[in-house]
Amino acid sequence: MNGRSVQRRRILALRDGTARPRSDELAAEEPLEIRVGGDAVAVTMRTPGHDFELALGFCLSEGIVTGAEQVESIRYCTGPQGAGDYNVVELALRSGATVPEAQRRRTYTTSSCGLCGTASIDAVRKQAPAVDGDGARLAVATLVGMPATLRAAQRAFDRTGGLHAAGLFTLDGTLRCLREDVGRHNAVDKVIGWAATDRLLPLRGYTLLVSGRVAFEIAQKALLAGIPIVAAVSAPSSLAVDLADESGMTLVGFLRGSELNVYAGAQRLDGL
Amino acid sequence: MNGRSVQRRRILALRDGTARPRSDELAAEEPLEIRVGGDAVAVTMRTPGHDFELALGFCLSEGIVTGAEQVESIRYCTGPQGAGDYNVVELALRSGATVPEAQRRRTYTTSSCGLCGTASIDAVRKQAPAVDGDGARLAVATLVGMPATLRAAQRAFDRTGGLHAAGLFTLDGTLRCLREDVGRHNAVDKVIGWAATDRLLPLRGYTLLVSGRVAFEIAQKALLAGIPIVAAVSAPSSLAVDLADESGMTLVGFLRGSELNVYAGAQRLDGL
Repeated sequence: MNGRSVQRRRILALRDGTARPRSDELAAEEPLEIRVGGDAVAVTMRTPGHDFELALGFCLSEGIVTGAEQVESIRYCTGPQGAGDYNVVELALRSGATVPEAQRRRTYTTSSCGLCGTASIDAVRKQAPAVDGDGARLAVATLVGMPATLRAAQRAFDRTGGLHAAGLFTLDGTLRCLREDVGRHNAVDKVIGWAATDRLLPLRGYTLLVSGRVAFEIAQKALLAGIPIVAAVSAPSSLAVDLADESGMTLVGFLRGSELNVYAGAQRLDGL
Repeated sequence: MNGRSVQRRRILALRDGTARPRSDELAAEEPLEIRVGGDAVAVTMRTPGHDFELALGFCLSEGIVTGAEQVESIRYCTGPQGAGDYNVVELALRSGATVPEAQRRRTYTTSSCGLCGTASIDAVRKQAPAVDGDGARLAVATLVGMPATLRAAQRAFDRTGGLHAAGLFTLDGTLRCLREDVGRHNAVDKVIGWAATDRLLPLRGYTLLVSGRVAFEIAQKALLAGIPIVAAVSAPSSLAVDLADESGMTLVGFLRGSELNVYAGAQRLDGL
């Protein structure tokens, strides 16, 4: 892995009842746009590194190309605005090879090479207001009890060991909605869809807890739903932390037993 | 959860050195096409159940609609071929509300309502030959050693706890390529892209090991790359097992310590 695959941040780590600032390493997450013969075929959130392999492997997996021999070259796209941020990869095909029409219509196209995490955050921020002024506060004692509540409720449903869970809690720790899915983004969408159906949006007085990791997409969904506090049993990605930082969201990771890491928005947590 | 969220299968479970047939429950996975005002805006692999919430939550999260009040109705689409399989959901918007043009162009459209797991498998099978006759054989003693090899190699890279790993092993247990990513599908694409760059496709003499779960998309990528044996530390989804079954792929899950579950293709494993 190159240096871009890990990012270092200052966090608050709660251990043995005491919160201390600490340096932490996050899995880097950045969007990658894959272009084939000039057409954008995908934008995926990925960890930088081995980007040419990712682009080639994606195109093979999706049937866009049937073999490496169809590919003339793979390179980073540098647009008119100068050296790119290495988040757009262009595959040039050998003469005669073309992208199937169905694939060309599968993704939106962007007009510039300036695709980066900052741009992704800007795009989300244009749609969603910051959550700073919401006044929500959550006791750490309540927060640390949420994973057990989620697991107990999940255990009743998940006999497969294969489902991600997302739970929506009130600030007093009551589980209002639990949804499970093979896709973690789907579990979150189901929770938000439940809340929208009950006309509960924006979810200012709620905490979203996810059973696994929290990457950009999950933080984005929470922000658009107005959720001020997002907690995860596992690690957040760098871009999820960036989005939380810039939008005033509280983001907690590695919430296990009486321990947790605060990546952003510690001011909402009482008893730290 | 309704009955469609879990599927029951016969597996071979290796415990204390003995493989015994057993009944196992799998997280159900099926594609869901979400349509808004007649336009397909997404196809997602999901666990059936709470589909209307999923469709509404997705549309809110993606900014396709800004509130539930824009939505006139949500229903399953039943096409000309009769009662659907409940895998297409149609949101009708109130008059005046429209889907942003950018969103309409974000996904491919399908022409029928007959979207189901079987159709997805058929589409993959059209692209990829079955792997039955490949002659690959793998000793169970080699297979059970792979997770430790993967973890040891991953530990050197993953200081974040936030990365999925995919490893490509030869049949004698040598790790040839390890890739990590915040997205598990990206880790697999990187491995396949590496192999394609080295002109190793199809990967008939290889085993793919993933650090987490294995859903349809991962099995699909492996099949297209010609990989006969796929193993996962966690659970497979129902559709991944279906695809493995129908394409002759060996699929192993819950590969932990000296234990494992065989979901398909046990004939390739020696020493069961």
